[in-house]
Amino acid sequence: MSNKKCEKGTLLVISGPSGVGKGTVLAELMKKSEDYAYSVSATTRAPREGEQEGKNYFFKTKEEFEQMIENGELLEYASYNGNYYGTPKKYVDKMLASGKNVILEIEVQGAMKVKKLRPDAVMVFIAPESKDVLYERLSVRATEPKDVIINRIEIAERELRACPFYDYVTVNADGKADKCAEDIMAAVRAEKLKPEKMFGLISEFI
Amino acid sequence: MSNKKCEKGTLLVISGPSGVGKGTVLAELMKKSEDYAYSVSATTRAPREGEQEGKNYFFKTKEEFEQMIENGELLEYASYNGNYYGTPKKYVDKMLASGKNVILEIEVQGAMKVKKLRPDAVMVFIAPESKDVLYERLSVRATEPKDVIINRIEIAERELRACPFYDYVTVNADGKADKCAEDIMAAVRAEKLKPEKMFGLISEFI
Repeated sequence: MSNKKCEKGTLLVISGPSGVGKGTVLAELMKKSEDYAYSVSATTRAPREGEQEGKNYFFKTKEEFEQMIENGELLEYASYNGNYYGTPKKYVDKMLASGKNVILEIEVQGAMKVKKLRPDAVMVFIAPESKDVLYERLSVRATEPKDVIINRIEIAERELRACPFYDYVTVNADGKADKCAEDIMAAVRAEKLKPEKMFGLISEFI
Repeated sequence: MSNKKCEKGTLLVISGPSGVGKGTVLAELMKKSEDYAYSVSATTRAPREGEQEGKNYFFKTKEEFEQMIENGELLEYASYNGNYYGTPKKYVDKMLASGKNVILEIEVQGAMKVKKLRPDAVMVFIAPESKDVLYERLSVRATEPKDVIINRIEIAERELRACPFYDYVTVNADGKADKCAEDIMAAVRAEKLKPEKMFGLISEFI
């Protein structure tokens, strides 16, 4: 295709319950391909030692962040431990325009908001091989109080139930992070082959 | 996944206009992966020197073939030069059950019949990089009468117009057969990740 030189990237949303190994899978993905980049979030949390503006986060005051919300500058946002976290549209769009596939690693509710605003986002859910395996992993730190563990499992249950709303599901069994990364790459590649993504070429045919 | 051991194969329908290089792409695909097999057609045409029953074709009498049509034993069929050609369901299903992705290389009308009978078939269209390039290729044998060339181009135009009805479109520019084969593999892999194909696992989650 003649427009191959600067093909727009794909917005890639990755979700999955805590403990499923999202970080490992994404690390594998970044190792395998230079076509992917993480999105950088905006936050009102104070920078930690060594964190860089525009690399780890875009650091904002509460007022600035709320202005961004009001101006519709965020794809999604949530508050956590008294701080805001959100995904700035501008940064995502800049990366997409440069040809990178942009990774948003977000929980289910944020993911659904993104899908609504960006229907062409590719939604991938990283699933455990079974509920039991995941719950065992989540309860492994036996020093923690029971209610902390139960709460963690309840959140995981809620996330798992969202699985059917994703475009693709990849199972991360033990030692399968590599396979998951390849699954994600196949999904992103396949999405670019859909006729609606090739309108320029196809309109010439019809 | 626990059912990985003998996962059912995917029915893969490949179409594209004459001259686009379908054969080269599929040869690349077969070289890259052992998970694919060609479907074997039934035909009433007489066997040629060296052709083997059940390997090149299933050779049938006209009566046998018409009985197969009547019994609904064919996924699609067409007649060409006074002979029947068709795709036997039984053979396709046996190969799919053994875990192979089964390739049907058929023209657009047959492809649409297959999609109707087997909605889970993955439909891939191999497209030229432009109409002009294809038409040049189709008219290159200057010894042929003009009306033969015009007829060939008309058929190609009709095929190209069917492009939007396919699930995926891969562009075979010069020397890109390898990329097309990888596109097809990505499409087949991605299709297996759709939530509806993972009902067993997901029903456990919800």
